[in-house]
Amino acid sequence: MDVSVLKVYVCQMEVVPGDPETNLSTMKKFIEEGVRAGADLAVFPEMCIPGYLLADKWEESSFVTRCVRANDLVLKLSQNIDVLFGSVAREEDENGENGRALLYNAAFYASKGSFRTLLNYNGVQKKFLPKTLLPCYREFDEPRYFSDLRKLAQSLNVPVSEILKPLDVKGKKIGITICEDGWDSLYKIKPFEILSPKIGAGDLLINISCSPFTQGKENARNRVFGAHAAKAGVPLIYVNATGSQNNGKNIYAFEGDSCVYGPKAERVFSFPLFKEQGTIVELDGNAIEVREESAPRKSGIAEVHEALVYLIKKNLARFGIKKVVIGASGGIDSAVSAVLYSEALGCENVFLVNMPTKFNSNTTKNAAKDLADNLNCPYMVAPIEDSINALCSSLEKCSFVRNDSPMRVEGIHYENVQARMRSAAFLATIASVLGAGFTCNGNKSEISVGYCTLYGDTSGVICALGDLWKTQVYELANEINLHKKLIPQASLDIPASAELSFAQNVDEGKGDPIIYPYHDKLFAFWMERWQRNALEDSLSLLEKGNDAFCSELGVDPDLFAKSFHTKEDAIADMRKWWNRYNGIALAKRIQMPPILSVSRRTFGFDFRESQL
Amino acid sequence: MDVSVLKVYVCQMEVVPGDPETNLSTMKKFIEEGVRAGADLAVFPEMCIPGYLLADKWEESSFVTRCVRANDLVLKLSQNIDVLFGSVAREEDENGENGRALLYNAAFYASKGSFRTLLNYNGVQKKFLPKTLLPCYREFDEPRYFSDLRKLAQSLNVPVSEILKPLDVKGKKIGITICEDGWDSLYKIKPFEILSPKIGAGDLLINISCSPFTQGKENARNRVFGAHAAKAGVPLIYVNATGSQNNGKNIYAFEGDSCVYGPKAERVFSFPLFKEQGTIVELDGNAIEVREESAPRKSGIAEVHEALVYLIKKNLARFGIKKVVIGASGGIDSAVSAVLYSEALGCENVFLVNMPTKFNSNTTKNAAKDLADNLNCPYMVAPIEDSINALCSSLEKCSFVRNDSPMRVEGIHYENVQARMRSAAFLATIASVLGAGFTCNGNKSEISVGYCTLYGDTSGVICALGDLWKTQVYELANEINLHKKLIPQASLDIPASAELSFAQNVDEGKGDPIIYPYHDKLFAFWMERWQRNALEDSLSLLEKGNDAFCSELGVDPDLFAKSFHTKEDAIADMRKWWNRYNGIALAKRIQMPPILSVSRRTFGFDFRESQL
Repeated sequence: MDVSVLKVYVCQMEVVPGDPETNLSTMKKFIEEGVRAGADLAVFPEMCIPGYLLADKWEESSFVTRCVRANDLVLKLSQNIDVLFGSVAREEDENGENGRALLYNAAFYASKGSFRTLLNYNGVQKKFLPKTLLPCYREFDEPRYFSDLRKLAQSLNVPVSEILKPLDVKGKKIGITICEDGWDSLYKIKPFEILSPKIGAGDLLINISCSPFTQGKENARNRVFGAHAAKAGVPLIYVNATGSQNNGKNIYAFEGDSCVYGPKAERVFSFPLFKEQGTIVELDGNAIEVREESAPRKSGIAEVHEALVYLIKKNLARFGIKKVVIGASGGIDSAVSAVLYSEALGCENVFLVNMPTKFNSNTTKNAAKDLADNLNCPYMVAPIEDSINALCSSLEKCSFVRNDSPMRVEGIHYENVQARMRSAAFLATIASVLGAGFTCNGNKSEISVGYCTLYGDTSGVICALGDLWKTQVYELANEINLHKKLIPQASLDIPASAELSFAQNVDEGKGDPIIYPYHDKLFAFWMERWQRNALEDSLSLLEKGNDAFCSELGVDPDLFAKSFHTKEDAIADMRKWWNRYNGIALAKRIQMPPILSVSRRTFGFDFRESQL
Repeated sequence: MDVSVLKVYVCQMEVVPGDPETNLSTMKKFIEEGVRAGADLAVFPEMCIPGYLLADKWEESSFVTRCVRANDLVLKLSQNIDVLFGSVAREEDENGENGRALLYNAAFYASKGSFRTLLNYNGVQKKFLPKTLLPCYREFDEPRYFSDLRKLAQSLNVPVSEILKPLDVKGKKIGITICEDGWDSLYKIKPFEILSPKIGAGDLLINISCSPFTQGKENARNRVFGAHAAKAGVPLIYVNATGSQNNGKNIYAFEGDSCVYGPKAERVFSFPLFKEQGTIVELDGNAIEVREESAPRKSGIAEVHEALVYLIKKNLARFGIKKVVIGASGGIDSAVSAVLYSEALGCENVFLVNMPTKFNSNTTKNAAKDLADNLNCPYMVAPIEDSINALCSSLEKCSFVRNDSPMRVEGIHYENVQARMRSAAFLATIASVLGAGFTCNGNKSEISVGYCTLYGDTSGVICALGDLWKTQVYELANEINLHKKLIPQASLDIPASAELSFAQNVDEGKGDPIIYPYHDKLFAFWMERWQRNALEDSLSLLEKGNDAFCSELGVDPDLFAKSFHTKEDAIADMRKWWNRYNGIALAKRIQMPPILSVSRRTFGFDFRESQL
């Protein structure tokens, strides 16, 4: 039956990783809505039944069986509406190169109780369409788990272009692709370029995705998918999941941002960020009608703010944590953390603890108290000096048999004792007694060079700011204060400082040895650029002169000149941080809590490191 | 020039990951020895210039440039001897699918100052041979970094079998393969089967490897490579690296175990484990002569013992750590750790600290002291009770504004305080003052189900026993005592116990809630089997009856019957541990120190997990 108008119910659903039954019932709810709205077709994201970032869970055949069973149950829901969705496909009689059952990341099209044949070549028929391009970089490990359309085509001795075809649906040709298939610029095989000549005006392209949030991804998405729509001269529906998924070390937000592009590359409709939504998209030839308002957009640090609160909320709920304890030092990191957690959990569930010693100024102590008052959080001052003294005096009374090293705790040793006493002794115990978790408030700058204490401020249940440079933490603090002045001015004004000795007295303007507006850019030059730079690269760049160096890094040349009187000073400084970045800092990163990812390169499983 | 005898200098070298210059000078030393011995050809392991497990270091183009430069410097050394070695190959004018320069894991053959052409098809010539099969499982991520001969063949539109050919060397045809190319059983393309028909009696097969140690790998190696030799009816030289490499979370030993197989699958010569060695292998037709004795072999837990000491020695040296502090509880884990570290670092560098509270028995306190005396290590008793009391009393004096939860530290909270006080406060501070590292003594059983305290006994610089089940720790203890009775009998005799409360009194036979001889097998059933099992699988197995269940797991049926009076008890127990294994235990594992890998599945980067 040909219809002139195709009503598509685009379902931006929250995907719960590892829980096919829950995801199936979410789909059922959307499908019923779609039927009620008289839609012809409901479209769901990639891997919306199993979830996407599951690490080696794919090795459990009983889990894959649960997913296959859920796939089949979609058939029952397809009597009155067609359903296009992403899930895992398993070949029942073939093993992959890892010796386990052969799996695909695939698209399924259920219609009137059956799966449509999506691939048909020379007697080989598949009731699913495998993804063509499997990402294998950053946090993506797809070839570890899945085969793909390229390998399938090779085993059939045929080019991909001969077997990848659009599907006929009610008179329209629909070109179906899965996530990376659209991000084709670096691949020799380009699924959209194969499909586009096979469809024409009035037809449709669809990309089903499960694509994690990074700051500013919307722009890349518009550039890439808008171009695909324009090239084919047809509308393109992009549907992405919401929710949060992780690989242990890194935790990702899936922002949704599903959208519809017109045949001239224009984004004609936007779904909200971080929120489920089903929307009817009516397609009449190349004309697109959506009877709803596009969701309002945020951008820049405001978008990151929203992502972080969403991530905290979703993940603490997953861990069964309703309350958190935060060490509130009066500094900027703990202040921003306190705001984010309060937004996620409610202020009454965020317990702020200030743990002073003789090195802590009234300035920071007052700032911590003001923060708690501004947020209306439970607040406590817990001096740690008695416990430190008890530890040091116990140790000083001890001595080793067969070795005469004295146990005197001074200098850097004494600094680190404070950090560990705060986290591993006080915060961990307070959290344990309250039935809460405690947070790690570290930022990307500290984590880069290990300016933190293991089992001290590196500890906690998650690290919310670990993918933000210190300069971005300030940016976020200012963005927060734009709406309501929650973060005390003192926390913004004082120099960043650990206050672990009198040498770090904030009232005397003394603080961290990191010049954040410069070093953040230097560290990013080393770790965030796609063409990865090493010490050698920053040294050769500097050889080209200060201006070239500062301009490439994005650093204020005056700040650079003021910070380093000679080139030798700048080089010595670079070498020092490079060695820390690859040495002690890496050792600490290995033992850090999961980091909430918001950038295009996050320490952890995204950025994999070997101790060399 | 044809010669009847080919003298091959087989170089089992230590590869230092990420240090091409050092590796080049190691090669130079071997090459000079080979020249002096009149060898025709020196053969080195896979990736012997860059190292193999480098994580995302491959993304640094300046690092790859250093490797390419070192490759080229081998040419200068090849005037009087040919050199076959493995390294990275970079295509200077082509990018890979990740947008960075296209890299191969490749073999190079240097002869008289030039690289021989190893691939020649239809005008395409390569001065290197790409690896055909790239492993993508466990700790192996090769497709993330490298292209391969399969992809190259596809881009040339030709089957691998047409372009993979033996090399003519002094009248012999040499079939060259790289590591995984030999482990071909699960792949459709089998490099040895392609090469074998192209060579004949008197020719030679070579496999260059960089293959990490796992217990019992020698047997697999004999089965696989012996068969390749027999199938072709020629000798096969297998050369593997020594040294240690890591991916952050897991640390691997490379044991060498290079060897020569005869044309009837027999291993005719064995190199030592964990030791560099160059050996002349003379090949006269199919006859093999080696004028040295094969290295003596160890097996079973003795081999693991050797691997662990090697790993400790290599890695602490890499981290610049000469001394360690070990919390000696009197239990078996810390006792075995103390022996291993003493063997690696010398007893004078292993500082044992017993940290009693009122819950610690004289039995364990004496065992700790006896251990130190047996090993002749520095030893100290550092009571932690005063520090715990100071912490608890500081906390009890505090209260929250806007919340009236009392800060009383009792029960499980008080147990965990002890563990954290020992590690994060005492051991970390003692280690800091001594300029030492402190060790994590956790075992695989505890780590599986999180029977340990984060920032407590999970802490340390490395975790030496983290890949041994508790029952294997006992096995290792007994193996150690076979040679010299270092581990006190009490540590072997008492029940395993944390001694964190009176409920864990060892003198009353009370200890851990884990029945190790049973649970070790259950946890291994879940995490170590290649076809991964889940809770469902153990439940269905149990449905088949106790005998079938115990036999599949390898558990004594009497122990099982004694431990669980009803099937419901056994099921409830399984569920409890399954939930811990996937829940709290995983959260702890994410923050654990690097684990020394000795099994075929190690928690960490080998066994990747998502918090679901």
